[in-house]
Amino acid sequence: MNAEIVAVGSEMLTPQRLDTNSLWLTDNLNRLGVEVVMKTIVGDDRDRLTEVLRSAMERSPVVLVTGGLGPTEDDLTRECVAAAAGRELSFRQELLDAVAQRFASMKRPMAENNKRQAFLIDGAEALENPNGTAPGQWLDLGGSRAVALLPGPPREMKPMYSNHVEPRLRRMLPPLHIATAWFRVAGMGESDLDQTIAPVYSKYTNPVTTVLAKPGDVEVHLRARCGTQAEADALIAEVAPRIRELLGDRVYSDDGASLEESVGRILRARGETVSVAESCTGGGLGERFTTHAGSSAWFLGGFITYSNAMKTALLGVPAGLIESHTEVSGPVAEAMAAGARDKTGSDWAISITGYAGPGGGTEQNPVGTYFVGLASAKGVESRRFFSFPDRERVRSIAATAALDWLRKTLLAR
Amino acid sequence: MNAEIVAVGSEMLTPQRLDTNSLWLTDNLNRLGVEVVMKTIVGDDRDRLTEVLRSAMERSPVVLVTGGLGPTEDDLTRECVAAAAGRELSFRQELLDAVAQRFASMKRPMAENNKRQAFLIDGAEALENPNGTAPGQWLDLGGSRAVALLPGPPREMKPMYSNHVEPRLRRMLPPLHIATAWFRVAGMGESDLDQTIAPVYSKYTNPVTTVLAKPGDVEVHLRARCGTQAEADALIAEVAPRIRELLGDRVYSDDGASLEESVGRILRARGETVSVAESCTGGGLGERFTTHAGSSAWFLGGFITYSNAMKTALLGVPAGLIESHTEVSGPVAEAMAAGARDKTGSDWAISITGYAGPGGGTEQNPVGTYFVGLASAKGVESRRFFSFPDRERVRSIAATAALDWLRKTLLAR
Repeated sequence: MNAEIVAVGSEMLTPQRLDTNSLWLTDNLNRLGVEVVMKTIVGDDRDRLTEVLRSAMERSPVVLVTGGLGPTEDDLTRECVAAAAGRELSFRQELLDAVAQRFASMKRPMAENNKRQAFLIDGAEALENPNGTAPGQWLDLGGSRAVALLPGPPREMKPMYSNHVEPRLRRMLPPLHIATAWFRVAGMGESDLDQTIAPVYSKYTNPVTTVLAKPGDVEVHLRARCGTQAEADALIAEVAPRIRELLGDRVYSDDGASLEESVGRILRARGETVSVAESCTGGGLGERFTTHAGSSAWFLGGFITYSNAMKTALLGVPAGLIESHTEVSGPVAEAMAAGARDKTGSDWAISITGYAGPGGGTEQNPVGTYFVGLASAKGVESRRFFSFPDRERVRSIAATAALDWLRKTLLAR
Repeated sequence: MNAEIVAVGSEMLTPQRLDTNSLWLTDNLNRLGVEVVMKTIVGDDRDRLTEVLRSAMERSPVVLVTGGLGPTEDDLTRECVAAAAGRELSFRQELLDAVAQRFASMKRPMAENNKRQAFLIDGAEALENPNGTAPGQWLDLGGSRAVALLPGPPREMKPMYSNHVEPRLRRMLPPLHIATAWFRVAGMGESDLDQTIAPVYSKYTNPVTTVLAKPGDVEVHLRARCGTQAEADALIAEVAPRIRELLGDRVYSDDGASLEESVGRILRARGETVSVAESCTGGGLGERFTTHAGSSAWFLGGFITYSNAMKTALLGVPAGLIESHTEVSGPVAEAMAAGARDKTGSDWAISITGYAGPGGGTEQNPVGTYFVGLASAKGVESRRFFSFPDRERVRSIAATAALDWLRKTLLAR
């Protein structure tokens, strides 16, 4: 079955914004065996939006429309889908009540224009939105054809798709059984990883293997699609362990857990705690450690020592050590980690100091160089890393490298 | 003048790839005063591609097509543009010679299928491609209407656009001069902001006013387009100050600077420094302060005190204060800020403590509640805030609220 995605909003026609929702939607549609054959990005323009929707609905059995469900005059999706489908819109008091209740729960006044969000296309079902004010809509056009209206913000769109659209699509589709495996890998580039596992996956068209990369983090997805669940499971059971073996301890997660969650699970199981001492990452490592709720069980906190004076004042790094080795050095990284462990009483402490750029750096340690220090009851050690010298990238990859080194050390001890 | 971008290639309909070429093209088109009104991503499918091209050419005077110019059977752009325009394709020996020469210069054999790249739409001009094998095409349809065929790889597409397409577009366009204004606003939702400024901007079709929102941050763009620069400047000079006035001190930047940059500039100008004490943000505020290079001039560092014990051990927050008020309270936020200022010797210190969720919270202070503390030579104070109770959002908005409060305080003193 084919689907199209129509993303509505003039902001996605600026040089700043892309329609990133469509990646997530495509992934989820593909899992159902639905192929995305076209994506259109259109602004808040009545004529163009109506024309595009009419073409999409003629061409493809499933059309997902994201955005344009807000309360302003610019939010035209409801009206244009109704026009393209030749239907009317009706005001629904129960939808307005839900919007009003949401504003009340946030203790904020509801603006008059929010009434626009209470109009439903005739014949459509309203889809509830616990994460925002705009309800979605599902319009069954008959003959296994349908249009879904989803809000633009990802945190509203994603749960609405998963809870309300996907079950309705499943009912429209022939039964298809899927089994998946998913490995997340740190410390390995996309092409290295691809070369490592290609000897296995290239022998199979089912399961399909996909490699997804972002800086410092690579994911491998396997998906088997079969007529029965037993067949799909058997295919995954045959291929996944062979790929897992090739990747070894570079796999930090086989259930989708992030690197910081994986580290947290190990620490929690051991009943141990960690603290941080950050220079160039400025708090980014602590921010990663606390991404997921419950991290207070193993993350105590730590220090942001952005200046050399603070490294000395807060962590007790000797000024002479900084002077003789520079602040971006193994000895300073080690002293920072030791200081954090000492001051917080944590079992483990991890430090980062580096040249994120664009300024700074030395001949020996140019921009992109960073040192990670790791302190534990067994003592303190440090490692030198180098990343492509882009400020944002250095800061993000340094936090990933620190987390991954801690993970591997925890597993080894 | 309006333009559409059609990106051709099935790889952009997978969960991994977006059409990023369109951002660069949009930026360059906007600089000429050309608006992008629609973007379509379509796979290597003859019927759909021809239909999409025909609609785009009917709707918009300028259509830029990227991708699908390669040598394989899947590369259908030449044929489909010809079909949509009702023209024939002709083989051109001089184009094949150029492709052959390129292969010769790379010392690689030319495959037979590269002949496909030597077909030109009747009436089109070939655009040379020094960075790849596929020549582009420019098809002037008369009446100030045109279609450009550009290769998909950015390093081939960009120079071809700049060297061959942009000069041709300039000749099609009336002389147009542009003036812009740009405000960034914190502490105000999109619809509040829209209601505030609509009384002014809705009276004007020129300049065009666009409101772009992300959580905790809203941007207002004004763009005037006129026959002379003086007229465009005059329009902006008439409208921008009126919008600026309605927004008051909620505007933190009128030159694109981020909130953290704006705060940094004020601190740098005053020769003052700041430190942080973070609980629920876990380092995210420090991470924001250090986003831009040069922040070491005014950001010293600080403390991540994720547990109550750390608030006491590192910042000297009395355990009894936490016990009597809870850790998410004004008094604790104030003691955290005062402790950070005291330990670092910074001029300003700012603290955050809150319930990011999903667990935690009290009846009085449910999940989504956070307190910001601000310490300076004049003493310490705190404020209570509430955000939609989504963990990621609370943490991000709390950092924004803290930065914005510091900014307003700096401006007021």
